[in-house]
Amino acid sequence: MRILVLAAALAASFPVLADEGMWTFDNFPAATVQSTYGTAITQEWLDHVRLSTIRLTNCTASFVSPEGLILTNHHCVESCLAELSSKDKSLLDQGFATSSPKDERRCSTQIADVLVGTENVTTAVANAVRGQTDKAANDARKKALTELEQACEQASAKAKSRLKCQAVTLYEGGQYFIYKYKRYDDVRLVFAPEAGISAFGGDPDNFQFPRWSLDFSMLRAYENGKPAKTPNHLQVDFNGPQVGELVFVSGHPGSTQRLETTAQLKFERDVSLPSMLLRLAELRGRYIQFGRTAPANEQLVEAQLNGIENTIKVRRKQLDALHDDDMIERKRAAETALRTSAHMTGSDPWTDIETASTRERALYLPYTYIEGANGFNSILFRYARLLVRGADERLKPNTQRLREYTDAALPRIEQQLEARVPVFAEAEVLTLSFSLQRMREWLGPDNPLVKSLLIKDSPESLAIRLVAETKLDDPAVRKQLWEGGKAAVDASHDPMIEFARFVDGDSRAIRTQFDDEVEAPISLASERIAAARFKAYGTQVYPDATFTLRLNYGTVAGWTENGTPVPPVTYLGRAFDRATGASPFKIPDSWMKVKDQLDMRTPFCISTTSDIVGGNSGSPLIDSGGHIVGLMFDGNINSISGNYWFNPANNRAIALHTAIIHEALDKVYNAKALLEEMSRP
Amino acid sequence: MRILVLAAALAASFPVLADEGMWTFDNFPAATVQSTYGTAITQEWLDHVRLSTIRLTNCTASFVSPEGLILTNHHCVESCLAELSSKDKSLLDQGFATSSPKDERRCSTQIADVLVGTENVTTAVANAVRGQTDKAANDARKKALTELEQACEQASAKAKSRLKCQAVTLYEGGQYFIYKYKRYDDVRLVFAPEAGISAFGGDPDNFQFPRWSLDFSMLRAYENGKPAKTPNHLQVDFNGPQVGELVFVSGHPGSTQRLETTAQLKFERDVSLPSMLLRLAELRGRYIQFGRTAPANEQLVEAQLNGIENTIKVRRKQLDALHDDDMIERKRAAETALRTSAHMTGSDPWTDIETASTRERALYLPYTYIEGANGFNSILFRYARLLVRGADERLKPNTQRLREYTDAALPRIEQQLEARVPVFAEAEVLTLSFSLQRMREWLGPDNPLVKSLLIKDSPESLAIRLVAETKLDDPAVRKQLWEGGKAAVDASHDPMIEFARFVDGDSRAIRTQFDDEVEAPISLASERIAAARFKAYGTQVYPDATFTLRLNYGTVAGWTENGTPVPPVTYLGRAFDRATGASPFKIPDSWMKVKDQLDMRTPFCISTTSDIVGGNSGSPLIDSGGHIVGLMFDGNINSISGNYWFNPANNRAIALHTAIIHEALDKVYNAKALLEEMSRP
Repeated sequence: MRILVLAAALAASFPVLADEGMWTFDNFPAATVQSTYGTAITQEWLDHVRLSTIRLTNCTASFVSPEGLILTNHHCVESCLAELSSKDKSLLDQGFATSSPKDERRCSTQIADVLVGTENVTTAVANAVRGQTDKAANDARKKALTELEQACEQASAKAKSRLKCQAVTLYEGGQYFIYKYKRYDDVRLVFAPEAGISAFGGDPDNFQFPRWSLDFSMLRAYENGKPAKTPNHLQVDFNGPQVGELVFVSGHPGSTQRLETTAQLKFERDVSLPSMLLRLAELRGRYIQFGRTAPANEQLVEAQLNGIENTIKVRRKQLDALHDDDMIERKRAAETALRTSAHMTGSDPWTDIETASTRERALYLPYTYIEGANGFNSILFRYARLLVRGADERLKPNTQRLREYTDAALPRIEQQLEARVPVFAEAEVLTLSFSLQRMREWLGPDNPLVKSLLIKDSPESLAIRLVAETKLDDPAVRKQLWEGGKAAVDASHDPMIEFARFVDGDSRAIRTQFDDEVEAPISLASERIAAARFKAYGTQVYPDATFTLRLNYGTVAGWTENGTPVPPVTYLGRAFDRATGASPFKIPDSWMKVKDQLDMRTPFCISTTSDIVGGNSGSPLIDSGGHIVGLMFDGNINSISGNYWFNPANNRAIALHTAIIHEALDKVYNAKALLEEMSRP
Repeated sequence: MRILVLAAALAASFPVLADEGMWTFDNFPAATVQSTYGTAITQEWLDHVRLSTIRLTNCTASFVSPEGLILTNHHCVESCLAELSSKDKSLLDQGFATSSPKDERRCSTQIADVLVGTENVTTAVANAVRGQTDKAANDARKKALTELEQACEQASAKAKSRLKCQAVTLYEGGQYFIYKYKRYDDVRLVFAPEAGISAFGGDPDNFQFPRWSLDFSMLRAYENGKPAKTPNHLQVDFNGPQVGELVFVSGHPGSTQRLETTAQLKFERDVSLPSMLLRLAELRGRYIQFGRTAPANEQLVEAQLNGIENTIKVRRKQLDALHDDDMIERKRAAETALRTSAHMTGSDPWTDIETASTRERALYLPYTYIEGANGFNSILFRYARLLVRGADERLKPNTQRLREYTDAALPRIEQQLEARVPVFAEAEVLTLSFSLQRMREWLGPDNPLVKSLLIKDSPESLAIRLVAETKLDDPAVRKQLWEGGKAAVDASHDPMIEFARFVDGDSRAIRTQFDDEVEAPISLASERIAAARFKAYGTQVYPDATFTLRLNYGTVAGWTENGTPVPPVTYLGRAFDRATGASPFKIPDSWMKVKDQLDMRTPFCISTTSDIVGGNSGSPLIDSGGHIVGLMFDGNINSISGNYWFNPANNRAIALHTAIIHEALDKVYNAKALLEEMSRP
């Protein structure tokens, strides 16, 4: 209990003890590691690890051979497996393997970014917004970030390095950076085990430990149609780590809210988390029941269902965390302490955020259903919106566009529009009718937009018609409309385009209102709080996660749950003990066939004290020698509150032990070529 | 805002102003009504209204003719309509009408109870528990209530009046009563309009106003196979009330928590409401998707789906209400005030409840999934549990049984077991597999009971097998097992019986633990708080709703929503304006056909300041002359927070105006005989 109190105080504002922290590579506490563990982390080590780490679309990965071979989680390639599946053949269920690189198959929307440089632009942004009202500052800030990205990409193009430049906000606006990435946009599937073993235990075991899920897969980066040359890669040590050993995680934690104010946390608790959970729970029920109508239908929604179930578990436990009134009180006390010490002039930024949060409560539902498109849950609608908005936005100067349509963002949009992702009409009707129905429920049948959309329709009849009549499932049609620009889109009578055009006015209006009345005052107040925090603690505080590259350190360790010690290592034999024969506790035939040849004492999963969250999936677990000794894929159930505060007593990350990866590739899948490739220097 | 503050303080403990209050008939504030409105309410008036009011299984109703004719809501007979439907013919969709009483059809599980007498037994209960520990007191209290019920029923049998006697707890244990009912257990369906008009607006319009839902239906009580003689009945005034007129609601509000402590409310907010909502939201999704597989399947789950959607809306808005931190703070302040004034000796009862609530957080999930049967959501399982437990409990002396198996309760159990309620295997598999899956999710796959149930099964395979192989869908089989008692049940190899027997040990164990560690200390502490409250305020406070008979007063009045006045009356014409042609905004053909003959200025719905909650559905709205002028069927969206506190500024009840009932029976359904019957004195 004592430790929890300490942790809460830390999370709220203070410099960090314990193995907590998602550090940027330019501010890694190497001195602390040296003094605590006696291990020296050199700049060379840091550079090598950074250049070997990859950001995927929404995961982390690492290079593990000089020929662009990539190690990541199975659940990070689920959508690729689904895209490459047909109604008759599910790669999720059956797995994927090749005997030579020519059979490797492209994941059409996957990218692999490597962070090759960063530039601190805090001063430039501060100069652009100085002295302005919150609304004007909000616009000026976005414009400045677009300009900085643009200048970076232009300079890089001139130097023939063609880097992707992305603005990054750290410390809730305390720092601004331009991050520069080398991008691989041709990423291919190399290997994936069957979901039966990669997700053994399924949703029931998700976020649980002990654990036996073989959650890994392999990709390869290509350049100019050939395997990329990747001299910066990590060597895999299949012996794995020792219990108690110092280990590091390099990766891209997606999002945390440890530096947010109590007003912001209460908004989450009262408004956004409950409404999101209710929406997801119903959608889960619809997917499950839809999956029962035919085995092919079950496969068709499997990847989406897995994603939803994961999110439900995360959000549910986040809500539980926020119901801890004592923690909220401690956050508030820490705020009061900082407020007292800061001697702010002008308005009180915590009060400004509270006022903006009250406004957010009023605007949240229309914002999230209309502009957030939770009322139009459909792949085809997303295409339509990209086309409609893209046509309008591209006519504007780069700095005046919505941030997601700047020149820097366009290649990614084009990649998405041109990708041959299969669209299943029945699943589209399911999600679109569901979301229209819920929009009517939450905004009310008398909301003007809802009313005008459903004048003669039920949500279902509207969804059926739109999905049946649109041609946007054809990548060629989308490409034509994109390239044809505004003239082509305006001339289109595609019903989904017309639908997206019809809602766009209301959608942009609520976005502007939200940006001006919620985002703008929160951004400005957050910057002021960040300044006060820097003044008090400097960079002894780490920034909240923003799906940008971070490094942390910890040890291989278990914990104590309700008085019972949980050991940090699981072994293969127990997976067979746990099997029931019924999914998700059924071990695939490929494993049953070679059961006698397997070493049941092979370590399977390990728990570590590493401070990670979603987005870190697929991160390499690295020893002090720079070798991969594990593959992060989950956290224990206590780790979910890590979104708001880190509790070193029981927050644990879960990694695959490298020994089980070797055992699987060697004895079950006979993938000798991959093992050989990983052994190359 | 001022009024809200006042209301909160009131709800927390103080005597009542405004038209708030769910008063028992023996404590109705007639003097206040006299002084405020100048209207005298006599004992004769009270007796007549009480004896004309009916408690249905989970609604209210009233006699409206001397031949047992009953007026209630359509949604109160939904389950009866579903029972009487077949896969080919849905009475929900088509409605029901008869040309003579011989065609009236029995609702097999419906009962009609009329409160004919009450007896205050507070002293007897106090004597039975005096000086005991909370756990011993809890057992002694239940034993005393069973003894009192038993004595009452025996005395009544001796006097040939055969009343049903039921113990009632008021003021959270401040008072105990025995309520005596005349029961009609042969209740038949007389008339119901189509769901298209009775639930016009469906879930989107539920709890909304203005409103156009013709939510009424008619039943008839029978005795000895003939229409019951009911000299106590209410006359319907088809002119309805005037705006501003004083009106009364006699009915059975189901449950409120206005006298609970902040610790209890926070338990609701943090634990029970979120988990219930997530469960219901997913089940809603499953039902909707199941309904899409065939029109017959949609009908099959229509009634359950309506019920779930109603509950979701209620619980969601209750959760919103509890997120009002200011209200919670005011509750706490009122508690502190009472605590200070009460000078309690011994432990502090508010602290005792807080301690028990902490324990409740730990026990709630296993309790609700196992003993609460949320893990076994199945009609067939409910039968199995009644049979298994009934066999064990009936061997014990009456006072040592679980309270729901006392002699007083047995006739109702037998009625349920013998009723010919159709059971649809597919719907059973849906709910049972769903609930087993969620039990595994929330209790975890390593929970001992979960583990032992799913050793070789998935939730789905287990559900399919149990539903396919059990014979409990046959009323004759159930009757045989019930009458065969323990020997028959023990000898049964019916898989559902075996299943219920298998879980019963764990189930009883968690119940005992919950009763001893949560219920017992809360009951004792609540009694002590009630005593302090009586000392301070006497009976100027009304008790929380307990689905027992109450009377309240109010006026026909609109309110102001976000600055816009909402008028208190809607008219028929607007229903046609609102129609879209798509369910739930489609007006049935029967109405479209006679549209030209209808008076579009007929009042449809009205809003009143009456303080009602769920359970009041079907309550007569009565004028000071004792005539029915409306039929309660809903509250506005603000009324849902009425579970915790009453806000007179915007809490409104919604009733059907009697004029629309006349217009419908006369011009649409041509039910002249019913109109004639209602005109008899």
